[in-house]
Formats: sequence, C-alpha cells, structure tokens
Amino acid sequence: LTDIYSQFVPSSFSPKEIFNYAPGGGDKELRALWHEYQIEKNPTLKTKAITQPLVTGGLTHGMSLIGELFVDNGDDLVLPNLFWDNYDLIYGEKFGANLIYFNFYNKEEGFNVEGMKQALLSSKQKNVRILLNFPNNPTGYTPTREEVDQIVEAFKEVVASGKNILVLSDDAYFGLFYENETAKESLFARLCDLDEHIFAIKGDAATKEEMVWGFRIGFLTYGFKGASKVALDALINKTLGAIRCTVSNCDRPGQSLLLKALKEGKNVKADKERTFKEMESRYLEVKEVLREQKSKFLKPYPFNSGYFMAFDTCGHSAEELRTYMLDKYGIGVINIADKTVRVAYCSVEIDNIEDLITVLFKAAEEIWN
Amino acid sequence: LTDIYSQFVPSSFSPKEIFNYAPGGGDKELRALWHEYQIEKNPTLKTKAITQPLVTGGLTHGMSLIGELFVDNGDDLVLPNLFWDNYDLIYGEKFGANLIYFNFYNKEEGFNVEGMKQALLSSKQKNVRILLNFPNNPTGYTPTREEVDQIVEAFKEVVASGKNILVLSDDAYFGLFYENETAKESLFARLCDLDEHIFAIKGDAATKEEMVWGFRIGFLTYGFKGASKVALDALINKTLGAIRCTVSNCDRPGQSLLLKALKEGKNVKADKERTFKEMESRYLEVKEVLREQKSKFLKPYPFNSGYFMAFDTCGHSAEELRTYMLDKYGIGVINIADKTVRVAYCSVEIDNIEDLITVLFKAAEEIWN
Repeated sequence: LTDIYSQFVPSSFSPKEIFNYAPGGGDKELRALWHEYQIEKNPTLKTKAITQPLVTGGLTHGMSLIGELFVDNGDDLVLPNLFWDNYDLIYGEKFGANLIYFNFYNKEEGFNVEGMKQALLSSKQKNVRILLNFPNNPTGYTPTREEVDQIVEAFKEVVASGKNILVLSDDAYFGLFYENETAKESLFARLCDLDEHIFAIKGDAATKEEMVWGFRIGFLTYGFKGASKVALDALINKTLGAIRCTVSNCDRPGQSLLLKALKEGKNVKADKERTFKEMESRYLEVKEVLREQKSKFLKPYPFNSGYFMAFDTCGHSAEELRTYMLDKYGIGVINIADKTVRVAYCSVEIDNIEDLITVLFKAAEEIWN
Repeated sequence: LTDIYSQFVPSSFSPKEIFNYAPGGGDKELRALWHEYQIEKNPTLKTKAITQPLVTGGLTHGMSLIGELFVDNGDDLVLPNLFWDNYDLIYGEKFGANLIYFNFYNKEEGFNVEGMKQALLSSKQKNVRILLNFPNNPTGYTPTREEVDQIVEAFKEVVASGKNILVLSDDAYFGLFYENETAKESLFARLCDLDEHIFAIKGDAATKEEMVWGFRIGFLTYGFKGASKVALDALINKTLGAIRCTVSNCDRPGQSLLLKALKEGKNVKADKERTFKEMESRYLEVKEVLREQKSKFLKPYPFNSGYFMAFDTCGHSAEELRTYMLDKYGIGVINIADKTVRVAYCSVEIDNIEDLITVLFKAAEEIWN
C-alpha cells in the first residue's frame, strides 16, 4: 500500500523489507547480528557452540514455544517464589507443569542457591526444568558474580545425582545492571557447555534490550555440552515447526527497522546509554529514598538491577494496598500473589520518585495502622 | 530509538504509536474500524450481535488460538480433503484433533455440500468442529450463492440431529472473487445468528485483505444466536488470556501503520482496486490458457477466486513433478499430499502465465509419458 509505504522516509526501505513475509525463524541478517551482539555482551559465549538465535514474536512467544516443545503435562518445573505471573499462566495453566517453588532470597538476603538446589533435587523426575529470570521480575535482583559461581556448582551437583536439567534463562531485562558486584553475563553463557546433561536455553528480546517494546521481536538460543551440528539443527527445526504452528512467521517491518538501526544507526549507542543512565539515576534515587523510610508493613526486597523493585507486605494484603493506592492517590502498583507489591520506577520521573515512595509508605500506614 | 523513529516521515506518528506495547487484543481504534469494514464487506452482519474483532499475530495465530481454546485431544474436526497443510500441523499434530475429511468437490464439480454434511453426521461426538476456508487454499474455489444456501441448510440438518457445531471460517483470501455467481459474503455472516447450537468464528487478516503480508495482523470474531453480552465477553476474555500466554500482545508499528492508512490514506482504495484488477487479469489468463491445454496427467480443479489454483495429478506423484519443475525449469510449484500440485499465479506476471502453464503440462508429459 502506497499510503503505508509513504509513512517511511523515502528510499529507506525497499517495499519487500516492509511488506513481504519475514523468513520463518527471522531475518537472516538480524539473526546473525543478534548472535554477534550476544557474544559482545557475553564474551564467554565467544568459543561456545550454540545455535544462531531464532526470531520469536516477542519474549513471551519464546517462553510459550519452549513450553510447547519441552514441557508436558505433569512435568516438574522449578521456579523461585517471586516470579512474573505469566509463567504460571503459560507453564502451569497452559502446559500443565507441576510448579515447584523455592524462596528467592536466603537468610543473608542474597539469591537462595541452596533452596534452588534442594528444589531441583526434590523432584522425583529424572528430567527437571528450571526457569530463572535475571534481572528478576518482580524483584529487580540479579545474582552477584559469586552467587553465579555457586549456582553453577549447584547445577553440577544436581547433575551428579543423576538428573538431566533444562535451564531456561529469561533475559528480558538483560543489561540493566547498576552495581559492581552484579554478574554482567547471562547465566546461559556459563551453562551452554557445562555438561552433557544440562540443556541451556536463552530467551531474550529486542523489546527491552533495544527499547522497542511494541515491536514483537524476541529470540531463542540453544546450547549444551557436546552438542553436534545435527542435534542443534534438529532443535532449530523443531522450533521452526512450532513457530509455523503458532504465528507462521514474525513481524517484518519491526525486523527491518531494528536491523537498520543496529547496522547503520548513528545514535543507537548514545540513545541506549542515555536511557541506561536515566534508569540508573532513578534506581539510585529509589535506593536513597528507601534509606529514609521505615515501616513494619513494607519491607523492600533487595534489588540491584532492572526496571522495578518489590516490597514484602509483611502479612498484609498487597491487593488492598494496590486498590487503595489507585483509588486514593491515582497511583498504579502491581500486586503479586497478595503478598508482594511491585513498583515500576522505570516509568516515574526522577523528581517524582520520592513522592511515590513516601505516598506508598503513608498509604500502608493509613490502611494497616 | 531515534534511529528507528527517524525512519518514519516526521510527525506522522507519536513515539508511543511506534514503541509502546499495543493493548492486549489490539488497538481499540483499529478493532472498531475493522468491525465497520467487516460490515461493509458483509452487509448481512449489520444487525448481528457479534464480538468486536480481537487482533491476533496474523491469521495463523488466530487459528492456533482457536485450537487452544476449543480443540482438545481426540476432538473431531471436519475438513475438506484439499486444505492448507498448516491445518494438519496445528489441529492434527499440535492439538491432537481427529481429522475427518470429505471430498472438496462433488460429481458436478461444485462444492460437496452433501459430503460435508455426511462427514459432520459421521462423528460420534455431540460437539463437532468444522473448518472452511473460502477462497480455498489450495484450490482457489469459493462456493456459489446457491451452494452457500445449501451449506446453511446442511448445518441446520446436522443441528436438528442433536449436534452442536463449531464452524471456523478462515477468510484469509476474502475479497478475491472473480465471478458473478460466487458468494461475496463470508459464511460467518450467515452462521453467526443461525442457531443456538452453531458457534461461528471468523478468522481474517489484514495480511492479504490489506496486502500487508509481513505485518502480523489478524483478527478473530465470534457470534452465535442468542449470545448474551456476558457470553460474548467471556469469549473475549478467554481469548485475551490465550493471547497473553502466546505472544503477550501484538505488533504495535504494524497496527499504527495500517490504522493510519485505513483512516487517512488517499490511495488505499485505488491501490487495492489496482491489485485486484491485476489478480483478476492473471486469473482470466490462467483460465484462457487452460482452455487450450489437455493432458491425461493434469486435471485442473474448478476455481473461481483467490490467488492460486490446483491440479489433480491423476495418480502420479505431485512431488515428482514439483522437483522436476524446479530442477529442469527453475519454477516453484507446491506439492500437496503427493496428489495435487498448486500453482500460485498471483506471483507470476501476466505475460509469463502462458509459459508457466505450458511448461507445467510439458513437464508432466516428459516425466510420465
């Protein structure tokens, strides 16, 4: 349609870059470029035999495809007890997985590696699945380098007990790391050639990494130790079949727009840097404001990364606080399982963050004191 | 990203129309507009209580959602024996439906209404499902007005026998009708308030109707006689849940581009008319050329609409002909179940159509005579 085509700057794209079907699995150049980017962001990947990323219709589509391919009714899936509620919908409700939870934090307020290991070992099944999302949604926590070493050791021990593990790393918020000690590479980089019995999957997306939320462009990458080309090709082909059965192929204009920006864009780096700096300053402001707030009703969970942070509502109803905040103050927060309130500081101007947090603590006092 | 934003003509879109998440179920204005369009194209719909179309990630995504919501393992699904092979992948392989086939054509070379009715009645289940795709892929056949009346009567008879029927109309190629006697409205318009026991679903898409193949924008619409607002809202909410579990939400830039073109585009109508005329002239040319070709190896199936037509290979291997055409003549045709060859004349310039058909008949002689 000329009316659609005329919305693009003249000569920037050929009609086929906008209107044609994208290849199943995605634009080849974009896939190759995303592969390079992953290596750049995760240098450990440089020498690893992994698949080239396949394009999915956003990160959720990737998660859903993994469910279709690797999660059957009754399969055990280990999750931390603070997680994105769509996991429950996708893996629990839709694919019928048996969800095994462990406490996200240990007593030292770090990532609960021991709890994770025990949860994996508690499964009576030989093949166990685990889904980890760092920076975690809703807590905004990413393990430290030391914790990542411990996680890797824990996986080795579970495998030594005779189990096979599928580890799905949801890297939706990858890159939003604000502290020195935080691990800066995806767990996938450590796991993709750790052991023949560990099947590592990386789900990531341009959605947040490249700040194109409305573009439905995610990626899936596979790796395991000793993987032959035949095995990796089979994984690719099974996934292509699943993509064909769910969406046929993924959005073309978004892929062309993203590819052009990544290839030729003069401002990409600066734009991303500026956004990162802005998010970092909001993060620091939240940290600062929280230092001055004390409450027996709201306990902030440790956080060091991502777009948001969460509070334990200490036995009180998070839903009650959510509706009160909305009705009385017109502020939207997210309730998780009625025990946790998530605050997305990414969408709050830095000047308003102090107000937001203060009002939240005030509201908790008003309804619970 | 400014680099992406700068690819659009200045001031044509706000950043949020390109970068933000689209609402679950799609852009509200686009949904309302698509609803109006469906009524314009299917005037019978004007007085019917149907749901407003929900946006899906292309037509395949709509088909897949219907599978998730309404097709369980072992459920009978009736299909004509000439069908798009993705139906088999989606409903047969993925959702485990038991596929019941009927011959697409009857002895008079029209749509086999009686065969369809018998197939529905042959099911031992109280609830039966049927999927009809007009213009049909791969044959390019759409029932005549008279045949549509007979189809409607057949459904009434099946319902009278005590069955409930789910009828999914895949209108992927809607509008590409070249003959006078062909029915010009979707079957959905006749079925959406025919009977309390008939649940009608319309799957359509901007993909071909608006010629934006690479944009993943499809729609799902529901209707049945006596449907209350509560019932229709429940259907919408179940579908929104399924969308959230598969792709979270659908592509934003595509929706904005399409909406703008449909709302303000000065050339939309003329562009579509020109493309239609071009397709019609290719269709007429294929008809013309076929009049001069006779072969005991290739029998063209009746066709009157769509983008392509198909040949019965009369007991010979369609795959053999496909590979021979590709190897010797560099021409791609599609093999279906080794018995049918599909020719997509939509992508062949009118001056080359005679050559294409002549070469196909020649190739059949070369390998089978």
